[in-house]
Amino acid sequence: MNLRTDLAVELLDQFSKKTKVKEEVIDSVKITSVLIAKEDAVKIGKADGHYMTLEFGDIRDNNISKKVIDILKDKLKLFVKNKNKILIVGLGNDKSTPDALGPLTLKYILVNAPLIDMGYSNDSVKTYAFEPSVMGKTGIETSDIIKLLTSHIKPDLVLIVDALASSSIERLNHTIQINNVGIMPGSGVGNKRKEITKNNLGVDIVALGVPTVVDSATIVSDTIDYMYKYFAYNKKELDNPASKLKTGLPNYKNYDITINEDEKKALMGMLGTLDNEELKSLMIEVLNPIDSNLMVTPKEIDEIVLILAKIIGTSINLAFELNVTNYLD
Amino acid sequence: MNLRTDLAVELLDQFSKKTKVKEEVIDSVKITSVLIAKEDAVKIGKADGHYMTLEFGDIRDNNISKKVIDILKDKLKLFVKNKNKILIVGLGNDKSTPDALGPLTLKYILVNAPLIDMGYSNDSVKTYAFEPSVMGKTGIETSDIIKLLTSHIKPDLVLIVDALASSSIERLNHTIQINNVGIMPGSGVGNKRKEITKNNLGVDIVALGVPTVVDSATIVSDTIDYMYKYFAYNKKELDNPASKLKTGLPNYKNYDITINEDEKKALMGMLGTLDNEELKSLMIEVLNPIDSNLMVTPKEIDEIVLILAKIIGTSINLAFELNVTNYLD
Amino acid sequence: MNLRTDLAVELLDQFSKKTKVKEEVIDSVKITSVLIAKEDAVKIGKADGHYMTLEFGDIRDNNISKKVIDILKDKLKLFVKNKNKILIVGLGNDKSTPDALGPLTLKYILVNAPLIDMGYSNDSVKTYAFEPSVMGKTGIETSDIIKLLTSHIKPDLVLIVDALASSSIERLNHTIQINNVGIMPGSGVGNKRKEITKNNLGVDIVALGVPTVVDSATIVSDTIDYMYKYFAYNKKELDNPASKLKTGLPNYKNYDITINEDEKKALMGMLGTLDNEELKSLMIEVLNPIDSNLMVTPKEIDEIVLILAKIIGTSINLAFELNVTNYLD
Amino acid sequence: MNLRTDLAVELLDQFSKKTKVKEEVIDSVKITSVLIAKEDAVKIGKADGHYMTLEFGDIRDNNISKKVIDILKDKLKLFVKNKNKILIVGLGNDKSTPDALGPLTLKYILVNAPLIDMGYSNDSVKTYAFEPSVMGKTGIETSDIIKLLTSHIKPDLVLIVDALASSSIERLNHTIQINNVGIMPGSGVGNKRKEITKNNLGVDIVALGVPTVVDSATIVSDTIDYMYKYFAYNKKELDNPASKLKTGLPNYKNYDITINEDEKKALMGMLGTLDNEELKSLMIEVLNPIDSNLMVTPKEIDEIVLILAKIIGTSINLAFELNVTNYLD
Repeated sequence: MNLRTDLAVELLDQFSKKTKVKEEVIDSVKITSVLIAKEDAVKIGKADGHYMTLEFGDIRDNNISKKVIDILKDKLKLFVKNKNKILIVGLGNDKSTPDALGPLTLKYILVNAPLIDMGYSNDSVKTYAFEPSVMGKTGIETSDIIKLLTSHIKPDLVLIVDALASSSIERLNHTIQINNVGIMPGSGVGNKRKEITKNNLGVDIVALGVPTVVDSATIVSDTIDYMYKYFAYNKKELDNPASKLKTGLPNYKNYDITINEDEKKALMGMLGTLDNEELKSLMIEVLNPIDSNLMVTPKEIDEIVLILAKIIGTSINLAFELNVTNYLD
Repeated sequence: MNLRTDLAVELLDQFSKKTKVKEEVIDSVKITSVLIAKEDAVKIGKADGHYMTLEFGDIRDNNISKKVIDILKDKLKLFVKNKNKILIVGLGNDKSTPDALGPLTLKYILVNAPLIDMGYSNDSVKTYAFEPSVMGKTGIETSDIIKLLTSHIKPDLVLIVDALASSSIERLNHTIQINNVGIMPGSGVGNKRKEITKNNLGVDIVALGVPTVVDSATIVSDTIDYMYKYFAYNKKELDNPASKLKTGLPNYKNYDITINEDEKKALMGMLGTLDNEELKSLMIEVLNPIDSNLMVTPKEIDEIVLILAKIIGTSINLAFELNVTNYLD
Repeated sequence: MNLRTDLAVELLDQFSKKTKVKEEVIDSVKITSVLIAKEDAVKIGKADGHYMTLEFGDIRDNNISKKVIDILKDKLKLFVKNKNKILIVGLGNDKSTPDALGPLTLKYILVNAPLIDMGYSNDSVKTYAFEPSVMGKTGIETSDIIKLLTSHIKPDLVLIVDALASSSIERLNHTIQINNVGIMPGSGVGNKRKEITKNNLGVDIVALGVPTVVDSATIVSDTIDYMYKYFAYNKKELDNPASKLKTGLPNYKNYDITINEDEKKALMGMLGTLDNEELKSLMIEVLNPIDSNLMVTPKEIDEIVLILAKIIGTSINLAFELNVTNYLD
Repeated sequence: MNLRTDLAVELLDQFSKKTKVKEEVIDSVKITSVLIAKEDAVKIGKADGHYMTLEFGDIRDNNISKKVIDILKDKLKLFVKNKNKILIVGLGNDKSTPDALGPLTLKYILVNAPLIDMGYSNDSVKTYAFEPSVMGKTGIETSDIIKLLTSHIKPDLVLIVDALASSSIERLNHTIQINNVGIMPGSGVGNKRKEITKNNLGVDIVALGVPTVVDSATIVSDTIDYMYKYFAYNKKELDNPASKLKTGLPNYKNYDITINEDEKKALMGMLGTLDNEELKSLMIEVLNPIDSNLMVTPKEIDEIVLILAKIIGTSINLAFELNVTNYLD
């Protein structure tokens, strides 16, 4: 995974008021739309533009996946309207399951450019699709391949599908991000050559990504946050005689509670004084020198990434009103 | 992954003196041989018998994988000597990468039973191979399928290959365990029906497994242990003026140091008083109610599991002195 | 492909009047139902019983595949009525595309036995599924594996899915055969051990097969038959002045015409006196000693076998009224 | 399969004396080297240049495949000498087994360009690899993609690997062709845009292909030729009393015998007066209007194409003296 974006939604608290944020919930799918202002973009090392995330439950549930297709298709239309010649790029390594989302999605995309050219289709949107593979397998910079194809095909939109890294275990495989900015490697690196952006390609871009991997440092810092909630929940319940009758702990994650600073310090000592980001930084500091900050993916990734590819492929076909097959039915 | 063993080597400190432990290092591969005594076996909910582990570096390094084949072949011979009719069983789900070790290994095994019967081979060991798949796909108890085949083929040894869960991030994909006991589901469960053991099959058994997944609770507790080492190392170095000249942190994991109890408490408060097992239990308590104790696997699992399958398949062929192909050359 | 049936429909002209034949056409799918009488069965080296074939156009056409599902589901119901506990067996080698129909079909079958046992499903038909692989990979006779599982599960029906050999290029990938007889290896061989039949298993059986391979001798003899038609068509058209205005040759295969014996002899000499079966025998005589009677499959087999698996899997789910997904939509 | 070459070796009898032909046999592998003169090239609708074929037995025999690697490596060196920067292109559709030779071969190629750039390798030849997929999946002309990459990477050699169509069943999967001309679509078509040649790319090219498919018309005409040999052999043997003692027919294909014109006419009537090419043309005339001139591949294609990919990949690595792995050992 060479080219990675973080999820903008994970950076909400770093933005000024110039950045516009809108949230809505449709059919239990939470949609967050963020228009990042230029000054905020600079601060987080990203480009300014429109970032939208859909957050949802377990897409292995057929009802949830159908809802996601419905919403994703509608939201995608906002990003691609008035575009008629599209190059769809599936980034990633098809032989590495958590990185195969892009290549797998292409399997479900209807490519109609030759059909239209030969008069066999009258779709109004013309589609091309390409899988540039990864530099480790080709020796060629992925962004260069996309630039070459873009200059040749001259699409009015490049639509990128990619697997991302998550900075929260909660969003892992439970979030789709769409942006009109493209893909930039690690903030502040300033490696312009590897960017896949409107600037770099000279054509409008939409990037569609799902976080499929997370690092160990995030697992640790997120778990410690859950632990605070867990103790807060238990404390509250101890004061509540009614709760003694219940068996089993509820999904306390949904409660917006935590323990106070003193309690954190008693529980976790010096580490109790750190916030989630600081904790994560400490864990990275600990794990990196011993090569143990593993990037991991849930063991069910094969099944999940296949369903995600079907969802995204179907939604793209629907958004462009192609002669469509819904691969989930 | 229905049927899982833990690694015996991870339980060393729970054993009495009746359990014999022998350690050796060959070509930087660490071999631990544990003869678990009956009373210790009962305590940990396992069967008594011989458990051996090989621990090694990154098997994506061709030099390391060749050494592992060499050693595994020799060690395996100790477990299978005087056996002439072998049923090799690849447990797991071939469509789920971290669980596909068993099915993938079978691809590299030379099955010669029909060749011997037709006079085309004069191998002295006769091999059969079978992939029982998983209950979610067949509806049939895996142990029942193996029992049926065993009663039909009447081998003098059943050799099982399986992916395991690890209780340490260090051993994840870096350990192969061999035992002469078979596979038993979770300790204490007493579900005799699901056992794949000599008792259950009525024939000698050897189980060969690699831990390919680990849970989040383990990642947290292991990371906290690393953190103690990290602080201990830093403290030691602060007192050592020479170290100020060095840049970068060494792989301090190899140092057998930690901080003292008071320091742990200052650093980690109440949690600083818990040992690794207690910490892990607490994390399970925290993560389970919110369905967040993910079983995860490194993102490179596709490449790793393929190499592991080649290593194990080749070693089995060599251990039985079959007309052999080394799939790693 | 160890265990193969021919298509009963290809043997129609060898049957006496005791064998009942019924033909119908639904939505341009031709259905032939043959109740083979005992004496005819003996003659052709098959078992007596009910053989039905569906013949259709190119299933890569979504309209055709949907019709086939509709009809196959209905016809299958006739074969499986009043059965409540089903073992579905996918025969063949999943690593050999033209032989992978059985294993691929299982991917689409809903296995509900554990769900019903745990109370998560109230389907009235209970399904198990199994892939016995092939003897070359397991060393174990496929029919033995099925017998073992049948004796263990005690289903009231075993449903086999398999890829067949065709004795006509026209039916290759264009025919599904259902029978209530099972699968018997080559006629007259009398190898009872390899049979997969009611007799052998002690339980009712339905076999569902598609011919995916054909041998070179058949390609030659069928092409010579086409040539006769071709010349007959051309001769007829030469006498018809109107036809001179047309360009291109129509699909003359549908015309029931041929040239007469003298014309055949002028055209094809001694070979012109042989019928299709005799020609094929001659070609086998010619090709076998030089190992050139290749079994071949169309180059598009990967796409075709995948669609066939979806069609058959979906039809089985529908026939048993399982909580169904139609994988073709 | 959009872009196909025939095998030059199949056109030997159409060449004038200006075309130089050299034959040798090494370890039972027959090597034919053809330097096609310009005027002959024009006649057959190909480019002038060097075409070499290796013909061998069944590459599923490990001894044969090792010999082929040894010879192919040496011959390839003649074609690539003094080249230091190579773009290797795997043509074809990775999801269609008989067309997957190119993509599969890339799996075994060592790509070292980034390693050399980062100082991790000191191979003297720098390799890049690319899989342009097929127009049906991308919407983009394959030759355009290769041209774009060539202009970007500026290699001094483009090495193409592709699956071909055979015009003889004997060469199917038993021949590797190397040329320094590239790939041109069907003779006489004059579709310059689709050519992948030195002319078109502006850089030296070597194309490496194996015929994996054959059409039905070829199967018919080749079988009729075999039949002539078969009758010639039988007739000769009838006159030879000694042969009556033998059982079984030998592989008469190796005998350079046939029956005379009168015998052909008696046996095959009018068709007996046609040569192999005329017969094939007639069969195409017969089969095309009824869509029955199937392109077919042997049913064992999955296994064969995988071995061919390993052979070619290993030979390329060896020819460039890369830090090599022989994937067949």
